[in-house]
Amino acid sequence: MSSHASKSAPHPLDPLTVDEVQTASQIVHKQIGCADNEIRFKLIDLAEPPKDNTLQHLHHNGPAPDRRARVYYHLKTSQALLIAIVNLATKRVEKLYDAPNSQGPVDWHEYELITRACNSHPEVLAEVAKLKLPPNARLLNDPWAFGTDDANERRRLFQCYMYIALDEDPEANHYSLPLPLAPIFDAHTLELVQIERLPMGTGDELDPETQPWEPAQPVEYSANIMGEDAFRKDLKPLQVVQPDGPSFKIFGRRVEWQKWSFQLGWTLREGPVLHDVQYDGRPLFYRVSMSEMTVPYGDPRSPYHRKQAFDLGDSGFGLTSNSLSLGCDCLGHIAYFSGVRVTADGKPAVMPNVVCMHEIDDGIGWKHTNFRNHKSSVVRNRQLVIQCTATVANYEYILAFVLDQAANIHIEVRATGIVSTMPIRQGLQVPWGTIVAPGVLAVNHQHIFCVRVDPCLDGDRNNTITYDECHPVINEPDLDPFGCAFRVNTTPIEKPGGYDLDLTKNRTFKIINESRTNAISGKPHGYKLHAVPSQMLMMAPHTFNYRRGIFTSKPIWVTKYNDDELWASGEFTNQSREDTGLAIWAKRDENVKNEDVVLWHAFGVTHVTRPEGMYFPVMPVEKFAVSLKPTSFFEVNPSNDVPRSNQSTNQSTLHTVGPESCCRPSRI
Amino acid sequence: MSSHASKSAPHPLDPLTVDEVQTASQIVHKQIGCADNEIRFKLIDLAEPPKDNTLQHLHHNGPAPDRRARVYYHLKTSQALLIAIVNLATKRVEKLYDAPNSQGPVDWHEYELITRACNSHPEVLAEVAKLKLPPNARLLNDPWAFGTDDANERRRLFQCYMYIALDEDPEANHYSLPLPLAPIFDAHTLELVQIERLPMGTGDELDPETQPWEPAQPVEYSANIMGEDAFRKDLKPLQVVQPDGPSFKIFGRRVEWQKWSFQLGWTLREGPVLHDVQYDGRPLFYRVSMSEMTVPYGDPRSPYHRKQAFDLGDSGFGLTSNSLSLGCDCLGHIAYFSGVRVTADGKPAVMPNVVCMHEIDDGIGWKHTNFRNHKSSVVRNRQLVIQCTATVANYEYILAFVLDQAANIHIEVRATGIVSTMPIRQGLQVPWGTIVAPGVLAVNHQHIFCVRVDPCLDGDRNNTITYDECHPVINEPDLDPFGCAFRVNTTPIEKPGGYDLDLTKNRTFKIINESRTNAISGKPHGYKLHAVPSQMLMMAPHTFNYRRGIFTSKPIWVTKYNDDELWASGEFTNQSREDTGLAIWAKRDENVKNEDVVLWHAFGVTHVTRPEGMYFPVMPVEKFAVSLKPTSFFEVNPSNDVPRSNQSTNQSTLHTVGPESCCRPSRI
Repeated sequence: MSSHASKSAPHPLDPLTVDEVQTASQIVHKQIGCADNEIRFKLIDLAEPPKDNTLQHLHHNGPAPDRRARVYYHLKTSQALLIAIVNLATKRVEKLYDAPNSQGPVDWHEYELITRACNSHPEVLAEVAKLKLPPNARLLNDPWAFGTDDANERRRLFQCYMYIALDEDPEANHYSLPLPLAPIFDAHTLELVQIERLPMGTGDELDPETQPWEPAQPVEYSANIMGEDAFRKDLKPLQVVQPDGPSFKIFGRRVEWQKWSFQLGWTLREGPVLHDVQYDGRPLFYRVSMSEMTVPYGDPRSPYHRKQAFDLGDSGFGLTSNSLSLGCDCLGHIAYFSGVRVTADGKPAVMPNVVCMHEIDDGIGWKHTNFRNHKSSVVRNRQLVIQCTATVANYEYILAFVLDQAANIHIEVRATGIVSTMPIRQGLQVPWGTIVAPGVLAVNHQHIFCVRVDPCLDGDRNNTITYDECHPVINEPDLDPFGCAFRVNTTPIEKPGGYDLDLTKNRTFKIINESRTNAISGKPHGYKLHAVPSQMLMMAPHTFNYRRGIFTSKPIWVTKYNDDELWASGEFTNQSREDTGLAIWAKRDENVKNEDVVLWHAFGVTHVTRPEGMYFPVMPVEKFAVSLKPTSFFEVNPSNDVPRSNQSTNQSTLHTVGPESCCRPSRI
Repeated sequence: MSSHASKSAPHPLDPLTVDEVQTASQIVHKQIGCADNEIRFKLIDLAEPPKDNTLQHLHHNGPAPDRRARVYYHLKTSQALLIAIVNLATKRVEKLYDAPNSQGPVDWHEYELITRACNSHPEVLAEVAKLKLPPNARLLNDPWAFGTDDANERRRLFQCYMYIALDEDPEANHYSLPLPLAPIFDAHTLELVQIERLPMGTGDELDPETQPWEPAQPVEYSANIMGEDAFRKDLKPLQVVQPDGPSFKIFGRRVEWQKWSFQLGWTLREGPVLHDVQYDGRPLFYRVSMSEMTVPYGDPRSPYHRKQAFDLGDSGFGLTSNSLSLGCDCLGHIAYFSGVRVTADGKPAVMPNVVCMHEIDDGIGWKHTNFRNHKSSVVRNRQLVIQCTATVANYEYILAFVLDQAANIHIEVRATGIVSTMPIRQGLQVPWGTIVAPGVLAVNHQHIFCVRVDPCLDGDRNNTITYDECHPVINEPDLDPFGCAFRVNTTPIEKPGGYDLDLTKNRTFKIINESRTNAISGKPHGYKLHAVPSQMLMMAPHTFNYRRGIFTSKPIWVTKYNDDELWASGEFTNQSREDTGLAIWAKRDENVKNEDVVLWHAFGVTHVTRPEGMYFPVMPVEKFAVSLKPTSFFEVNPSNDVPRSNQSTNQSTLHTVGPESCCRPSRI
C-alpha cells in the first residue's frame, strides 16, 4: 500500500500516486511563483493521456505517454477557479487557464470552513436562539451546493441546512430534527449572505417570526442510542470462507479473474473506473465508468426549488468514498485499494481502502437436467465485485462493477442513506413529499444516473451502436397464416444524439464491431446493453434542472470519442447554468457509424418518499443494475468451461428438522 | 420426511400427503366402480378449501375445512378428461364431471409411452433410415404439447421433435443434433397421426425427399465428454458457513424467519406457493404464486407456428421440478421439502427435495456514515430463498421466492437450460432466429410469466389496487416559478380488467388497505409492486397465441377474488383454443375497490437468440425479479432493528498482496 513499493512506471491510466500528487502541487507552486499560503488547492487527479498514445503504448510498443495531473485551485486573493494541466514527466505546467464563470467541486477544506462559519455566526445564533432549543441540543449543519436560479450569480455560495441532535452519540440522527432556517454563505469570503428561513406550512409563506421549536422525538439508527433490547435476536451468523484463497490476482492495479483482466482506475470524481477491460485476452472496453448523477427535488417552495445535486460533478464519488473496514461492507475474502487526494495546502492525503474487491456467489449460473435420466449439470454464478460507498452528506450510493463468468459486466448502484429532510409544522401535509417522522418532510425527487461505456470490441476502435426492434409480421397471410411471426429489425446509429428506449418494440441497443463476424451465427461480434427503463427528468426544457444536465432527458446517448469528454454534464456542474457536456458533444454533425464511438445510458428512479423505505431513519437499499452482455461475441456459452457445482467443493450443510416440528404434520 | 411422522391435522393449505393421495385415488376407484386398470390417473393435487372457511378456521376458531383432492383421470376406454373433487374427510367424491373439449396437462406416464411409440414406430424408423445416420447415433425425441391451429381438433396430440446423440454419455447434448422430422402421435391410441417433415431451408418448402443427415459436431456441456482439460482451473472454492445454524425455524410446513412467517404450499402445477404470509404478526398476503407462463415462438413455418407452451398449465412447475441434492442448487445450510404425485395406476410417488430453502447474503442492506466523524452503521441484506428448478424438457426455470429483512418479498425467475432447437441446412439463415451451432436454428420467442398476488393487508380481506403517477406541474408560475415541481396523483382501480404500466409517468401500482392509516405519513397502509416492464405479446388479438392467454397482452390485471380462480389462462391450457381464466374474470362488471381483490402481473422477455447466451449449449441464467415492498405500512425502516454488520460475526479475510505484485507499481 506504500507509494514507495516500486519505482517502475505506472500504467498510463493508473490513479496518481502519493508522490505524483506531491510533485504536481509543487510544480504548480513553482509555476505560479507565489508563497505557499496564497494557493488553495481543490483537486489533483489524473489527467488521462490521449487515447492514441495510450493504445500505441499498450498494444504497439509505443512510448509510455507522459503522466499528467489535472489541478484545480484558487489563489486566495481571487474567486476565479484556476486549472493547471501538469506534465509530471517534464515537470512543467502544460496548460494553465481560468474558468471565471464556473465553480469547481466542493472540497473538504471549504466544507469545514463553511460549517464552522455558519455554526458560530452571531446572526445565525441569534436566529437559532428564537427556537428556544432544549439545553442539550447540539447544532449541526450540512452545507449544500447552492444550485441555480439566477443565470447571473457569480459568487460561490452554499446553503446551510441546519439540524439539531439531542444526544451526544456520534451517530445521533440530526436529520430527524431539521430546523426552519438555512443560512447562505459565500465560500470565498465566508460571509453570511442571507439567513433564509424555511416554510413550515403548506405554501411559500413564512411565519412572521421564527417560532419556538416544536419538540419531537428523533428517530434513531444508532445502536448505542437504541440499546441492545431494540434489536432482533434471531439472526445467526453467515460467513463466507475461501479455504484456498480468492480466484483473483492483483498486479499493481491490474486485476485478473476468471478470464477477465482490467486496470482498476480511480478518480476523485467517479470513484472506481474500469480501464482496458478484456475477456480471455480479447479487448472489450477501453473505459467503463459512472459518469454523472443528478438529484432534482420536486418542491417549488424557496429555497427548495434550487435543490439539485450533481453528486459526481459537485462532490465526487471518489472524494466522498468511505474508508472501508474488514467485515462491514463486504463479506468473504476482501482486497482493498486506496486513493489519494490533495489537501488545501497541497499535501497528498491517502484515502485508505476506498475500493473493495471480493468474490460472491450469486446462486445458479446455469443448469440443465436431462429429464430422461435426471443427470444434472449446474454451475454456480461466481462474481467479482469492485465496490465503493460514497457518502454525499446525508445519502449513500454504493457503486459496484460486477463481473461474471459468462462474460457479462453489470454496473450496479445501491441507493441508501438518509434523505435530506426539511422541517414542517407537525400535523400538516404538502403535495411535494411525505411526512416520515413528526415534523419531518421528505420531498419527492428523482435520481438520474449516467453510465459511460467506451467500447473497443476485439481491440478495434471503430465500433457501431445499433438497436434491434422486434416487430410482428402483419398482413402477410402467405408467409404467416396464423399470425405468430415476428421479425428483428436492426438500425445502426449514424449521428450523435439522444435516443429513446421503446419497450413496446423490445428496442435493444448494442455495440457491434462491423468488421468481425461470428462464425456460427453469421452476425457481427457485439455486446448488448441491458438498460434500466426509467422515467426521465420531469422538468421542462426551459428549466435550469434540464439545461444543467440534458443527459436526464433521454436514456441513450451516442457520441464520437474525443479525449477528455468523460463527464455527461460537463466538467463544472456546481452552480452551472448550462450543460457543457452531452449538450454540446451530442449535437455535432459527424458520423458515428463504424467510428470511435461512446455509448451513454441514463437511468434512475423517481422517489416518492415513504416512512419505512425512503428514508427513516436509514433507507433499505434500492438496487439498479445496467448490464453489458455478449451477443454473437462468442461461439458458445463462455461459462461452459466453469467447473460444475458439487458438494465436495461447496461443503453445504443439510438441515435436519429439529424437535420443534414433532407436534406438527410432516412436510409431505 | 415421512408421511407418518404425525397424525395431527394438516394445515388446510398444506399439500396433499402421501396418505391423502393414496386415499383420493382409492375413493375415485371405488366411486367409478371399475377395475384398477380401467382408470389412468393424471394428477392428484390439493383442492384448496374456500377462503371463507380457511380464514374462519385460522383466525376465528372455526372448524378445520375438510381436506379435498382434485383428481384428473381418464378411463382407458375414453378420450374424455374426467375431474373428481374428492372430500378426504367424508371419503366421498363431491363433484365428478368431464371436460370433453379440454386436454389435461401432460403426465409422465403418457410422455414415456409416446416417446417409446415414436422411437420404435416402423414408419418413423423408415424415415429416419433415409437420414443415413452414423452407426453410433442414438435416436431421441422430446414430445411437445401440440399447440393449436385448428379450433375443431379434439384429439390429444403430441409433436415429437427428434434428435440424435453421438455419445453414450447420459448428458450428451442431443439438442445440438436436431433431425428434420417431427412425427405426430395420438396420446390415447398411441397411433402415428402423421410424420411431419421439417423445413430445412429459408421458407416453408420441404426437400422432395428426406435427405441424408449433414454431419455436424455436437456442442456439448457434459463434463465427461468435454474432458478435464476443457475446464478453467483457477476457480477457488467459496463456501458458506453458518456455525450457529440457520435463522429459520420449520414447524411442519410453517416457516418462521426474521419476523416473517408463512405456510409453504406446493402444487404440481405451480411448484412452491406462499400462503398466509405475515410479517411481525401482521398478515400481508393470503396467497402468492407464479400463476402461468407461456412461450410463443415467432417462426411461421409449419409446424413451428403451433409452438406455444404453457409451462404451468401444460406441464407444471411442480411436476417437472428437479429432485435437488445437497451442494448443487444451493450453497450453505439447506432445508429441503418434498412433494407427492400420483402414478398412472393411482399410487402416490414421493418427489424428494423438490423445494430448497436457505439463507443468503445479498451484500449491503443499508448503510449510513456520519461524514463528520466517519462513524458508520451497516447492515447486511440477509435473505431467505425458497426455490425450485423446473425442467420442462429442454429448458429450465428456477423459481424463487425471496424474503428480506426490510419486509420486501421478491419473486425471482432465472431462465436457463437449452433452447428447443430446429434443424437448418448448414450455411443458411432465416429471419426467425439465429444459428447457434452448425445446422442448428434457435428461433426467437417470448417468455411471458404471470404472478398472482392475493393480498390481505393487516388481515383485512378488503383491499384496493391503486396506481400513482408523477406529473410535472405545468404553467403554474405563481406556485412553481422555476418549473421544478411535480405532483403524485393516485387513482384507485374500481373495475376488473387489464391495465398498462407507463414509465413516462412513473406509474406504480399499489395494494392499499383503505381502512388503515399510517400514523406518521397519514397515508393508507400499502404494499407497492415493483413491476418488470416488458414487451407484451406481439401476436394480434385474432391469433390463437393471444386468445389462449390474454394475460400476455397487459402487464397488470385486477380481478375480484373467487375461490378456484388461480390460473391466469384457465384450468386447461393444453391445446386450448380460448383462455378460460382472466379472459372471463377480468370482464365481469363488478366493484373491486375496497373489496377482496387479486392483483396479477404479467412480465417477460423477448428472446432474440444468440450463440453464447441463448442457448448453446446451456444458457447462462437471465434473471427477473418482481418485488412487493411496503409503503406506509411501517412507521420506520423495518430493518432498523437488524444487528449491525461487524467483523467478529462476519469473520472476513483480508487479502494481502502476494509476490506477484513485487515488480509492479503499488496500488497508490
